[in-house]
Amino acid sequence: MKLLDAKMAPNSRRVRIFLAEKGLNVPVQAVALAQGEQHEPEFLAKNPMAQVPVLELDDGSCLAESAAICEYIEDLHPQPPLIGETAAQRAETHMWDRRVELGFFDHVLGTFRHTSPYFHKKMRQVPEYAECCREAGWKRLAWLDGHFADNTYLAGDRLTVADITLLCAVDFATVIGEGYDEQEFPNLTRWHADMTARPSSQA
Amino acid sequence: MKLLDAKMAPNSRRVRIFLAEKGLNVPVQAVALAQGEQHEPEFLAKNPMAQVPVLELDDGSCLAESAAICEYIEDLHPQPPLIGETAAQRAETHMWDRRVELGFFDHVLGTFRHTSPYFHKKMRQVPEYAECCREAGWKRLAWLDGHFADNTYLAGDRLTVADITLLCAVDFATVIGEGYDEQEFPNLTRWHADMTARPSSQA
Repeated sequence: MKLLDAKMAPNSRRVRIFLAEKGLNVPVQAVALAQGEQHEPEFLAKNPMAQVPVLELDDGSCLAESAAICEYIEDLHPQPPLIGETAAQRAETHMWDRRVELGFFDHVLGTFRHTSPYFHKKMRQVPEYAECCREAGWKRLAWLDGHFADNTYLAGDRLTVADITLLCAVDFATVIGEGYDEQEFPNLTRWHADMTARPSSQA
Repeated sequence: MKLLDAKMAPNSRRVRIFLAEKGLNVPVQAVALAQGEQHEPEFLAKNPMAQVPVLELDDGSCLAESAAICEYIEDLHPQPPLIGETAAQRAETHMWDRRVELGFFDHVLGTFRHTSPYFHKKMRQVPEYAECCREAGWKRLAWLDGHFADNTYLAGDRLTVADITLLCAVDFATVIGEGYDEQEFPNLTRWHADMTARPSSQA
């Protein structure tokens, strides 16, 4: 088993942190996104979507999409649970993971894709849409700050993949110049400090 | 258990078809989206995201996000499998569900939200972004048409939740005037006819 990924890609980091929390050491092979390696035939045979991460299994088959990779790892290595041990726990985790992903992470990525010079020649950018993403993202972050006033993690007292998703999204937002104000979001700041103190955050 | 949903919302239909394929009869309570019922305190207590569908459990707890609801139903009622019976099958299903959702369904919703008069006063619309969505959506649909040349369903010969997601997305695209050309996409047309012939498609 090996992970094809890129150091800076937030969805790759999501999988690396997930593996680190599981205590698993999976070899990583870097994909040179800036050089367009993801568009070469060899990579496209592994993931026609031209995206990292991809988990290449020992039989040569490939699994793409970070959320699918995390589910697969949890299936093979249930301990410690990062999705859940019961149907109710798993359901709650999936709900939170979606809330974070669709309501915040997607907005961070939208802001990045529609403003960054990196994408100037790669896609049609709509800066006004980036503004919509920015507004929606901040609104959701404010709501999450309120949630963390009463909850250690997103799913109450359980650390889950949803926290990992949010950590990657928040940190990527900072990388692209959309960092939050610690005074404004004290509860999010407390949660972020807890997450960053975990060795897995360095993955 | 009851499902709070709205007849026209594509994510609500996704859950209704999933339940129908499982042979489950869950009472449905309509939420009047046009009248803003989803923004009232009683509904927000069930889902602060102000979205349908929501699965209300017998203990009064509520589960939101259609993908999370489907996972929960599969956990409680594994037969017939719509996600998978093995880790490898589940992984493949999750990968396809994401490819359809992020690569097509989101673009259909983006087209709708950024052009429909229904959203004029509800959000900031960016018609140029809708154009981007339209282009990206058609590109993905063409790719899926090629996939269906060699595969009965998205995950090969297994009907999965990913097919249900795609059916809801394709049909919603037609509703908003973005129907595809059957001559142009013959394999997608074959798959769509198969899906539509299933009684669950009427849910």
